[in-house]
Amino acid sequence: MRKRKDIIVGVDMGGTSLRALVVDGKDKVLAEDKMPTNPSQKATRLIAGVAALVEKAVHAAKLTRSDLRAVSVGAPGTIDWHGVVLRAPNLGWKDVPLGQQLKARLGVPVVVDNDVNAGVLGEHALGAGSGVQEMAGIFVGTGIGGAIIARGRLYKGSSGAAGEIGHTVLMVDGPRCSCGHRGCAEALASRTAMERDVRAAIKAGRPSAVSAIMKARHKQRMTSSVIHAALNQKDAVMREVMERAQHYLGILVANVVNLLDPERVVIGGGIAERMGEDFVAPIRTTACEYFLRQADARRVKILPGTLGDNAGALGAVVLARLRLDK
Amino acid sequence: MRKRKDIIVGVDMGGTSLRALVVDGKDKVLAEDKMPTNPSQKATRLIAGVAALVEKAVHAAKLTRSDLRAVSVGAPGTIDWHGVVLRAPNLGWKDVPLGQQLKARLGVPVVVDNDVNAGVLGEHALGAGSGVQEMAGIFVGTGIGGAIIARGRLYKGSSGAAGEIGHTVLMVDGPRCSCGHRGCAEALASRTAMERDVRAAIKAGRPSAVSAIMKARHKQRMTSSVIHAALNQKDAVMREVMERAQHYLGILVANVVNLLDPERVVIGGGIAERMGEDFVAPIRTTACEYFLRQADARRVKILPGTLGDNAGALGAVVLARLRLDK
Repeated sequence: MRKRKDIIVGVDMGGTSLRALVVDGKDKVLAEDKMPTNPSQKATRLIAGVAALVEKAVHAAKLTRSDLRAVSVGAPGTIDWHGVVLRAPNLGWKDVPLGQQLKARLGVPVVVDNDVNAGVLGEHALGAGSGVQEMAGIFVGTGIGGAIIARGRLYKGSSGAAGEIGHTVLMVDGPRCSCGHRGCAEALASRTAMERDVRAAIKAGRPSAVSAIMKARHKQRMTSSVIHAALNQKDAVMREVMERAQHYLGILVANVVNLLDPERVVIGGGIAERMGEDFVAPIRTTACEYFLRQADARRVKILPGTLGDNAGALGAVVLARLRLDK
Repeated sequence: MRKRKDIIVGVDMGGTSLRALVVDGKDKVLAEDKMPTNPSQKATRLIAGVAALVEKAVHAAKLTRSDLRAVSVGAPGTIDWHGVVLRAPNLGWKDVPLGQQLKARLGVPVVVDNDVNAGVLGEHALGAGSGVQEMAGIFVGTGIGGAIIARGRLYKGSSGAAGEIGHTVLMVDGPRCSCGHRGCAEALASRTAMERDVRAAIKAGRPSAVSAIMKARHKQRMTSSVIHAALNQKDAVMREVMERAQHYLGILVANVVNLLDPERVVIGGGIAERMGEDFVAPIRTTACEYFLRQADARRVKILPGTLGDNAGALGAVVLARLRLDK
């Protein structure tokens, strides 16, 4: 019989959806649930939604809240040690005491950390990075996030903020980034950067299937599914934009390998999840060209994540265990 | 009375000179000596030179080899765990068993590590980085080297090669680097890059005092002393080239801070040693502009190294202690 108090609910708070997994002490998923979110809704309302989703998932696993050891949330943005979301531009949050409010609603211990930290930790513990001591994770989506595993553990830096690989400059004086600077990796190779470039090409008069695909799917944004569909239709604009982004991502991977000497680099996020090796192979080719140490081309494995959508929620569970076992 | 077997000789093998410090267990320098090297001489001859310099320094400290706990060498290039210099382009070395050959000549234990690792470790243990847990060191000279202190210890990565910050790309498709790639920090902001740019300006017909200064000082290369003299003469070409290099170095520092979240960044190497705060202040200004987290502008200290010429040799001593105490 499993120890009931090993059960943790991992929650991934994405920009567009919430996902909850009920996980036992042996990493078995007992139940899962998800719901869409509206990023324009108020913090209190979104937190009520998280609590309701947790309740639903726990019920689906035929458990009650009293069976839970903890609820662990991966949230976008900068999180402090007390579970306060200091800044989350994607949600429009500032200084929201997410941990405390969720705990008040659910009556169980709550752990909160950054969603990318959780995702990379998930891939390290249970996915494409398992078994290695030195790893970097790069998550490509609306933005580009990252996290570092050093000597087998998540590397937090001096203030808990390490890993902002999307805001390292690759192209001095390059395109403007959401952070205000120029030439960051995020401004060159995120889904947002790709959408900017596709729209510019269409505006310049080049034919592309992207607009029609977005319309047919009722999408306001060029999501991973739109990108994938356009590539499947051999859309030339989409292909060029994707190839350029992959080239920049390859240089970004090489920068990380030259600086940190990891044995594995895991590429996660929506596009990697949908396209897998088709997304990662060209990134790998460019990265190997830019390695300083030629032997790294054989030694360093660059892989797509294997946990897909579940990386963040599973990673949040791993993270909670590490924190609570201390 | 000091324990004799605490005494270690630290050696810094630079491209143009050798430096040896005889250091006791309390970090006191008992004697020092240095000699110029000829990078075109054979490995065996250079190693004989290192052995002779160590003997001379030990003699100057009124000691003998039997008083030594170890000799520890910081050498340029990639070094393996057995003290073999796998590759050192500046010396033209490949697979030279430096540790073994020195040990055979001196009859004492010999430790070998990378010279930049040693320099950064020296600054961390005894210089501008003392007391912090998370630090990055960037050494600007002929090339740009770096090393990372993570959780209080030198971070070696998965194969001992971490820290090659000079070979992270800052400018996609930028100028060609000595490593063969384009747009590396080293190709933008090393002394070699500055010399390339000054020569190009002179060739394009701009007046500059640099050639005359080099001639007067019998220098084939634009050394740190030449740079410093040209700046003191308010040479416009030198000033522009230096300002551009400092701008790139500022972005490089910001990349490291955004990725690794250190609490201190130490800038070392020949130029920093000679110019100190005049070199570092503009780097700091640009870095702060490029920080993702605004609070880092107050929190993260960017400082010139304080150990000067001795950083490498002192760091080699620290490194030997860490290795031998294991």
